[in-house]
Amino acid sequence: MAKKFYGVGVGVGDSGLLTLKAVETLKNVDYICTPVSTNSDSSRALEIISNLIADQEKFIRLEFKMSKKKSELEKSRCQAAEKINDLLNSGKSVAFVTIGDPLLYSTYSYMLEKIKKWNNEIEVETVPGINSITASAAKYNLALAEGKENTAIISDVKSEEYLEKVFALFETVIILKLSRNYKTVYPVLDKLDLKKNVVIASKCGFEDEFYTEDIDYFKDEKIAYLTLMIVKREGI
Amino acid sequence: MAKKFYGVGVGVGDSGLLTLKAVETLKNVDYICTPVSTNSDSSRALEIISNLIADQEKFIRLEFKMSKKKSELEKSRCQAAEKINDLLNSGKSVAFVTIGDPLLYSTYSYMLEKIKKWNNEIEVETVPGINSITASAAKYNLALAEGKENTAIISDVKSEEYLEKVFALFETVIILKLSRNYKTVYPVLDKLDLKKNVVIASKCGFEDEFYTEDIDYFKDEKIAYLTLMIVKREGI
Repeated sequence: MAKKFYGVGVGVGDSGLLTLKAVETLKNVDYICTPVSTNSDSSRALEIISNLIADQEKFIRLEFKMSKKKSELEKSRCQAAEKINDLLNSGKSVAFVTIGDPLLYSTYSYMLEKIKKWNNEIEVETVPGINSITASAAKYNLALAEGKENTAIISDVKSEEYLEKVFALFETVIILKLSRNYKTVYPVLDKLDLKKNVVIASKCGFEDEFYTEDIDYFKDEKIAYLTLMIVKREGI
Repeated sequence: MAKKFYGVGVGVGDSGLLTLKAVETLKNVDYICTPVSTNSDSSRALEIISNLIADQEKFIRLEFKMSKKKSELEKSRCQAAEKINDLLNSGKSVAFVTIGDPLLYSTYSYMLEKIKKWNNEIEVETVPGINSITASAAKYNLALAEGKENTAIISDVKSEEYLEKVFALFETVIILKLSRNYKTVYPVLDKLDLKKNVVIASKCGFEDEFYTEDIDYFKDEKIAYLTLMIVKREGI
């Protein structure tokens, strides 16, 4: 496995949601890089896998600065990717782990882009993971979409007008990062009479995970970072 | 685990893509129901898991008629759900397995709906699976979406006008079931100058899986049922 770069998705909390391939990969690589936010000093991905990996020496914490300044974000990502690249260049195999899936709204894609640019002969393997959308639906036993229904995944609700257009086109709409989108989403759901058609999944897979169909619950409550909302035009 | 109904996603081909929880669930249940299409007489889900489960006696094949007639489809689904319900009522635990994820465009959601209606006290647990979208992206090491990008999953491209509206709103557009959508998709990609921005993943996880960035390849080739296309407005 020398000099190979792996992106490994570790699901959303329950270590049972790791795939067999993810476990095997993490056991076999020389180093496992886990992203750590400078805000929280903890790595959710590391918490999920630490019990599965006997050799704790192979964990490397990579700090990511959570900043709204693009230049700071980029600098932080560059430093992390450089660290990975150094390990690869020393002939080691390296896995970068992410919660959820590595290629769906994940830091891994930034690492991958840089490492491929610097080192275009490097072998890369991505091991997919259970993402928060399907994990939340599973906890709720809720079909996201069937047959000819179409599904929208919205990370950024650009405006009320934008979201109205989305609802005109899609049977199922999933709003990620509800904390930053709630204020724009709320009036649209009210206007379209869809307030009763939602499930909100907060921190799916965490010990304090929370599910509600009551969109008004968050009028006065702080919304955790890892919160998503599923809206079905035909009802929940 | 008596009298409990499980929906278990088994990923897209490589049995390494099963989660630890999926394997444990399948080992512990009394019966494992695998969907079989009357067209092909084979069950992809069964092929994926048959090597993992020692006790082959617990597999039950449920036939699903592939028909364009809604009444025939519905009859076939009802018969399958009745069979599962009978097993549950005899006090057994039953898993229904599906390729991909059980709640994203899967037959499990029809089973779940009927069984919950007939038997509203039944305990249900859904075990999420790796779906064909993230599995295809992983094979291609392609980031589906990052940051504030939005993603559309289109099962039915209703019309060229519809798809143009989708591209006006979304950075990433994933077209499922390309065989039935290709003729509508092609002229839109041509018009929007997006023909170079696609990856097509056919039968991801199968032995004859196939990937191409050439949308014209399928002008004269038959498109397999399990084929999807990823389009990124900013390029692949």
